[in-house]
Amino acid sequence: MSFKSDIEIARDAKKRPIQEIGEKLGIASQHLLPYGHDKAKVSQEFINEVQARPDGKLILVTAINPTPAGEGKTTTTVGLGDGLNAIGKKAAICIREASLGPCFGMKGGAAGGGYAQVVPMEEMNLHFTGDFHAITSAHNLLSAMIDNHIYWGNELQIDERRVAWRRVMDMNDRALRDIVVSLGGVTNGFPRQTGFDITVASEVMAILCLARDLDNLQKRLGNIIVAYTRERKAIYCRDIGADGAMTVLLKDAMQPNLVQTLENNPAFVHGGPFANIAHGCNSVIATTTALKLADYVVTEAGFGADLGAEKFFDIKCRKAGLAPDCVVLVATIRAMKMNGGVAKADLGEENVDAIKAGCPNLGRHIQNLKGFGVPVVVAINHFVTDTEAEVQAVKDYVAEMGSEAILCTHWADGSAGTRDLATRVAEIADSGQAQFAPLYPDEMGLFEKIETIATRIYHADEVLADKKIRDQLRAWEAEGFGNLPICMAKTQYSFSTDPNLRGAPTGHSVPIREVRLSAGAGFVVVICGEIMTMPGLPRHPAALDIGLNDLGQIEGLF
Amino acid sequence: MSFKSDIEIARDAKKRPIQEIGEKLGIASQHLLPYGHDKAKVSQEFINEVQARPDGKLILVTAINPTPAGEGKTTTTVGLGDGLNAIGKKAAICIREASLGPCFGMKGGAAGGGYAQVVPMEEMNLHFTGDFHAITSAHNLLSAMIDNHIYWGNELQIDERRVAWRRVMDMNDRALRDIVVSLGGVTNGFPRQTGFDITVASEVMAILCLARDLDNLQKRLGNIIVAYTRERKAIYCRDIGADGAMTVLLKDAMQPNLVQTLENNPAFVHGGPFANIAHGCNSVIATTTALKLADYVVTEAGFGADLGAEKFFDIKCRKAGLAPDCVVLVATIRAMKMNGGVAKADLGEENVDAIKAGCPNLGRHIQNLKGFGVPVVVAINHFVTDTEAEVQAVKDYVAEMGSEAILCTHWADGSAGTRDLATRVAEIADSGQAQFAPLYPDEMGLFEKIETIATRIYHADEVLADKKIRDQLRAWEAEGFGNLPICMAKTQYSFSTDPNLRGAPTGHSVPIREVRLSAGAGFVVVICGEIMTMPGLPRHPAALDIGLNDLGQIEGLF
Repeated sequence: MSFKSDIEIARDAKKRPIQEIGEKLGIASQHLLPYGHDKAKVSQEFINEVQARPDGKLILVTAINPTPAGEGKTTTTVGLGDGLNAIGKKAAICIREASLGPCFGMKGGAAGGGYAQVVPMEEMNLHFTGDFHAITSAHNLLSAMIDNHIYWGNELQIDERRVAWRRVMDMNDRALRDIVVSLGGVTNGFPRQTGFDITVASEVMAILCLARDLDNLQKRLGNIIVAYTRERKAIYCRDIGADGAMTVLLKDAMQPNLVQTLENNPAFVHGGPFANIAHGCNSVIATTTALKLADYVVTEAGFGADLGAEKFFDIKCRKAGLAPDCVVLVATIRAMKMNGGVAKADLGEENVDAIKAGCPNLGRHIQNLKGFGVPVVVAINHFVTDTEAEVQAVKDYVAEMGSEAILCTHWADGSAGTRDLATRVAEIADSGQAQFAPLYPDEMGLFEKIETIATRIYHADEVLADKKIRDQLRAWEAEGFGNLPICMAKTQYSFSTDPNLRGAPTGHSVPIREVRLSAGAGFVVVICGEIMTMPGLPRHPAALDIGLNDLGQIEGLF
Repeated sequence: MSFKSDIEIARDAKKRPIQEIGEKLGIASQHLLPYGHDKAKVSQEFINEVQARPDGKLILVTAINPTPAGEGKTTTTVGLGDGLNAIGKKAAICIREASLGPCFGMKGGAAGGGYAQVVPMEEMNLHFTGDFHAITSAHNLLSAMIDNHIYWGNELQIDERRVAWRRVMDMNDRALRDIVVSLGGVTNGFPRQTGFDITVASEVMAILCLARDLDNLQKRLGNIIVAYTRERKAIYCRDIGADGAMTVLLKDAMQPNLVQTLENNPAFVHGGPFANIAHGCNSVIATTTALKLADYVVTEAGFGADLGAEKFFDIKCRKAGLAPDCVVLVATIRAMKMNGGVAKADLGEENVDAIKAGCPNLGRHIQNLKGFGVPVVVAINHFVTDTEAEVQAVKDYVAEMGSEAILCTHWADGSAGTRDLATRVAEIADSGQAQFAPLYPDEMGLFEKIETIATRIYHADEVLADKKIRDQLRAWEAEGFGNLPICMAKTQYSFSTDPNLRGAPTGHSVPIREVRLSAGAGFVVVICGEIMTMPGLPRHPAALDIGLNDLGQIEGLF
């Protein structure tokens, strides 16, 4: 048996016109704004019309701490969505959009894999429906208006050294990380140091993904802190007067995108905020819309459950009033082995002991997730080299933890590989046993919130922060920002802040390097370690191999 | 009688589904890639299929030198297209796309006016179908790959001081005109001075608008000169290896956009290169496709006829093998009066003498255009304050010049206001009397080509250029670029290089400040005077007044 590549499978997809996919969810064609024949936006009018309907069941797919072996979180999200449809349920999936820039570096596609993919794959990894371009434009309009305000007299008395708002581009371009602008004399303004981040790191992206509607979007945009005066008074986007025009630029981008899986089931693909300095989930408007249209909505969150699921619960669900009914925790035999100390080159050999040694990482995630009051099912994303004994070892471990693990073969088999998982997930979701509650209340102090996450999710002993950081948090509380949730930015590879500390570490500390206020998005970012917000290209960027072949097909993108 | 604003008229438009507009041109719905319900791209497959068909008649709309009074070139293009359809002809129009950035400064819309508009107006002035965003991405990918090449060892030995390729953004942002990049130490690269231009100034834009197909696009992209070595050896885009990935990013953007006029007639809106450092016409692929689908194609060129029509003939028609059948030269009574010395405040008063004094500007354009072997009709774009005596004065003058002037009221009346013009234009186009030839042959030397344009079109006495510029032109000839056409960048307000010299000046000189080689687009840019390639925002940018109203409609954009 020879395997087809993801792109070969995607090219062979028997796509249905997007209107047919919309029909499955009861969206009439006049409410679908098509982009080509296989992509569409759902109209704001239609979204307004369905608001009174009851919500379907919400299922979160999350994962253990990622290893170089890969877990297949998006693949499992797609596979579970197809599995639910295959057993006769009306289900939709909600995932994030891919960023264009990294595709020219070395990142692969972000639309699942094997026979659990969302299509059209190429467009989703390129311009798609233009949402990220709209975010780039809106972000940079604000940037231009800030420098323009300073240029024409600086009525707001912005301290040019304290302009917090940078520019963005959806491109891996290290040369733009740190720049000096406004050189060239009087007509070009006042020189100052600034830089570009990649578009997915824009607060506008986080805002678009958390806004309930266009009014709420504009209000949040207006709340962005763009600069400070010499007296440290915050200057907001609304002071610059950019919030109205930014909303106009984002009007279409706020409408969720509908595409399809390889099995022609509906998939919402909308928004894609960074999972470190932002919350790493698809848009609230896509999720809430999907819940009005489908009986089961399967969604995912960035990175492992310690970061992704925690932010999904404490930021997205809290702010959007969502209550998940079931969590699927994705694990692979290979990742368990890596957690158990096996090198990547040796992953093909059976090693039950290593799996047993690696299971505590999985166990701690199960324990953490249950702490949010949501039932957990473990999905073992099957790989060809997995042995029965290895799979059984994981199943036994999970059973000991009071949960259950189900083997899934969606990568090779599509929905046929997730029928058991889908059946069990639907049972759990229908049972009403979930009693979701976020980790901490809004009223808790900011530092206490950080400590709660660090001790209860990361199982750390303490949070380390110098006086300057504690003072900053107290100052924000005094200014009325104390009720905001925390957005942790730490390594995705460990429960701790040390990426090499696998498994389920204890006794560690969480040092805070920096805190940032995303007043528009509505969270306080707590940075533990180095966070790169503008990637670079590698020595041999993927772009060198990307091109059209003689058939006009795209080669080298994945 | 009270007048509706352009945007009110556009909002009241009875738009037909874009598939119906496509049907008028024989485009089946599977070959229309919709963007919403009122915009679509015409598929590359369909374009390939119709190549063997005969061409329709090509009509160029151009204008006298612009004055602050406005001429209404796009409005007349739209009005004539509707007029041709109204008298039973199968006609389509081809115009440029609008740039997003300037809309937030002070520019109005670029989709016609009154009852001669193209819709959807808002989308056309915002993201439209994403073409400009794709051009921005392709341009900046090349920029990132150049700096990345230097970062990883600079195998091509690029002289960092001689990187010619800047970055682009579709935004009026003066702070980005002149910047230093790659600050921040070893991991961010080698600091150097560079800057951003606005996207419409990108050579990628000019290339997209001149490329015949995707193969030709990639070849032209590969030919872009991005930098030089210390030994002044040119480094091309293809040396960097970006041409394939850039073509992938531009694949969809290469397909022309179809929209409709207020009277539901087909309008291709595609591409929008600068009219100074580039050729200022919509894409070749839109024009050649329209010619296969309609019996009459009405198109326009940027600025006045001395710049726009000359470049249309000598660059676009020459390179695409187009032969125009008729030229419509747009003039207004108000612009004639301004050319005759009347101040803007006094334009409302009848002044036949001023018109007679201003007519020589019109006369010279007629004379110039006839020199290309194409018959000329003058369209007088009527304004409410025009008197019969004033209109008659222009008609008499034009008759003396051996041409004819026709009064048009399309702004107020739509196609009913251009029936006479349409009838006459169709007669001329059908008569086959045009004998188009470009101004100069490919083989002529570069400096001689510049002199030919300056003396025969601008009616200057001489071209002034220092030795460095003449040497540069000779060096390019030696490198094989001598066969390229010239792209003049001078003021649009005068035949001369002095914007205040109205009318039909003689005895003036044309000083050349700089020459640039656009090897990918395929022309030599000759710069006479200051050319701004990154605009700034005014003190009170339009963005301050742009927003959504309570009905969710866009306010303040125009």
